[in-house]
Amino acid sequence: MFKFEILKKDKNSKARVGLATTSHGSFETPCFVPVATQASLKAISSEDAKLCGVDIIISNTYHLHLRPGEDLVAKMGGLHKFMNWDRPIMTDSGGFQVFSLGFGIEHGVGKIANIFPDETSAYLEKRKEWSSQAKLAKVTDDGVMFKSHIDGKMLELTPKISMQVQKKLGADIVLAFDECTSPLSDLKYTAMALKRTHNWAKICLSEKNNKQALYGIIQGGAFEDLRKESSEFINSLDFDGFAVGGSLGRSKADMLKVLDWTLPILNENKPRHLLGIGEFSDIFNIVNKGIDTFDCVMPTRLGRMGRGMTFKGHIDILKNIYSKDKRPIEEGCCCYACQNYSRAYLNHLFRTKELLGYRLLTMHNLYFINNLVAKIREAIKKGKYGRFWRF
Amino acid sequence: MFKFEILKKDKNSKARVGLATTSHGSFETPCFVPVATQASLKAISSEDAKLCGVDIIISNTYHLHLRPGEDLVAKMGGLHKFMNWDRPIMTDSGGFQVFSLGFGIEHGVGKIANIFPDETSAYLEKRKEWSSQAKLAKVTDDGVMFKSHIDGKMLELTPKISMQVQKKLGADIVLAFDECTSPLSDLKYTAMALKRTHNWAKICLSEKNNKQALYGIIQGGAFEDLRKESSEFINSLDFDGFAVGGSLGRSKADMLKVLDWTLPILNENKPRHLLGIGEFSDIFNIVNKGIDTFDCVMPTRLGRMGRGMTFKGHIDILKNIYSKDKRPIEEGCCCYACQNYSRAYLNHLFRTKELLGYRLLTMHNLYFINNLVAKIREAIKKGKYGRFWRF
Repeated sequence: MFKFEILKKDKNSKARVGLATTSHGSFETPCFVPVATQASLKAISSEDAKLCGVDIIISNTYHLHLRPGEDLVAKMGGLHKFMNWDRPIMTDSGGFQVFSLGFGIEHGVGKIANIFPDETSAYLEKRKEWSSQAKLAKVTDDGVMFKSHIDGKMLELTPKISMQVQKKLGADIVLAFDECTSPLSDLKYTAMALKRTHNWAKICLSEKNNKQALYGIIQGGAFEDLRKESSEFINSLDFDGFAVGGSLGRSKADMLKVLDWTLPILNENKPRHLLGIGEFSDIFNIVNKGIDTFDCVMPTRLGRMGRGMTFKGHIDILKNIYSKDKRPIEEGCCCYACQNYSRAYLNHLFRTKELLGYRLLTMHNLYFINNLVAKIREAIKKGKYGRFWRF
Repeated sequence: MFKFEILKKDKNSKARVGLATTSHGSFETPCFVPVATQASLKAISSEDAKLCGVDIIISNTYHLHLRPGEDLVAKMGGLHKFMNWDRPIMTDSGGFQVFSLGFGIEHGVGKIANIFPDETSAYLEKRKEWSSQAKLAKVTDDGVMFKSHIDGKMLELTPKISMQVQKKLGADIVLAFDECTSPLSDLKYTAMALKRTHNWAKICLSEKNNKQALYGIIQGGAFEDLRKESSEFINSLDFDGFAVGGSLGRSKADMLKVLDWTLPILNENKPRHLLGIGEFSDIFNIVNKGIDTFDCVMPTRLGRMGRGMTFKGHIDILKNIYSKDKRPIEEGCCCYACQNYSRAYLNHLFRTKELLGYRLLTMHNLYFINNLVAKIREAIKKGKYGRFWRF
């Protein structure tokens, strides 16, 4: 069960407020989607996430396929029950993670850090080892053979397998399996990869079930013709929504250009997700282009690094000036951390590496970003967005 | 402000139910006191602790003196405000931690692990380095000179300094500064150390303020004569309560013998705390002897190690059998973790090292032990303790 309706459009931009309805409830868009890579938002619980205003989360097919495995999750009643989250869930297709193991390593680019939950020394060690080796993934027209980053076992992901895994995980919104190219891939390779992605899109659609919404993924790197071709093709198929994926160029300006090539071609009545983007500075720009949902590890990762998000930028809570600061992370903030704890206490927790600190800053950052996006929705609804976003 | 009254005594043992009242509220005894070493219960927040039935916590003068320093805590409004805990707090005197740096290292005994919040590799490294060095603390009749485990700086703790630090921290119950001897100390050394502890007890009393209850500490190692002498002496002074500290021998049986020598001598209308003891198997035995409060890192430390406490013993949540187990850690348990999450999910969180796991098992263990102690209180009140504790 999936429905999407547009409640209000902004006059001065392509921003819009939508309402998506799934069998695990509704959420309004624009909406930030935090990343529960391994069926957990790391330092916080499902109940904490609700306190932070989280409406929908995204989990990783690649990670959950490896651990604990989709069969176990299915046996436990699906992802919602397994992690005690009764609101909507998206799962990605695993394409991006497999890319990280392939070209991500070969080209030394991409969000390869996503492979490991944290930038641990174990990860840095492995990365060094891998960079000097052959890449860990091999793409063919059928799918991808790759080496597990956990035990080195050879595994296969194909459009069909990805869909089967995602079906067992049981998310409300699933993504088509795609080949995510590198920013360093040339036109020729990117065009070939796009052909595969389009073929795989059709296979994924043929595997679609009635319970899950399926979004098609638009690829094409930073090449205008390919992005337009991909938008036309994916738009022509019977997907429930769209996700813009892959390399978005080498700068924020490139990313916005990609959105300009892509979004106007898509059926405006279907929701559009932007994969892996959502830093503070991106939000207004992507909402203005007509993006409805977007996921990013930043708020949670920054929280674990001791960075608190504020309207004046990040603060590094470990700095000495905060050790005597009685104020909350951000004055006036209604989050659990700001309502109960001072910067001085958080500084102490991070200095002494007490686990509570990671949770508190994660909660603040998620609340901060959800609160911001809620204000954006309100402003659009009231026809006041134009003035609001230029604050 | 401090008051202690005995509400009910058991007929078949020396167990009793008491009510302690401080300016941060009352708590009934017997009562388990979890250890918030560095002004934090590590993986859980103050609000979590309340959900787990925690009535009172104990923090460490040694650790807080080093980081963030008592002056900073005082400037932040005291320990209660700093860590957002509005219920009673105890602080220890720092004697035990200084012992760990001295004889603890020289003799390779004692709870030296307490020096570091966790058994990190950094700690194990340091311990190795230190063991081969001279001990880091030097005891004189005036107090202890010691090397900070953080930066190696030479620092001093005396009865007067300890009391001043504890005053600034602002706990409701503070402990006298003592010399904690090693189980390997001989009669001669232990007797000499006891003399110091008794002199220091008088100095601490002269530094007492009206806002904080001050407990005297009974030392004397595993020597009957010394323990009895110490009990007589400390009992003769105007302390608000007693704490039994130091080496309690080499076995659980030795520990109970120490309590038999000690507790009957003490004014029964004053509360008795047992320092650093409180594993599941100890609780009935020490309550039977007339102990009112006791602190122990076990429930929180076990939680971070993936051990869940149950009435049938600990379960190691990392074991493969739990990966498919839909049940909560303990069936029928009303804790936050058991009400919301399965063993299978906890197994997944610990395998993937997601931070949420540490919090959930800590909460379960604290709830488990507080719930057990609450049942003990109920049984004593109803005159049914004799039957209850032999379950």
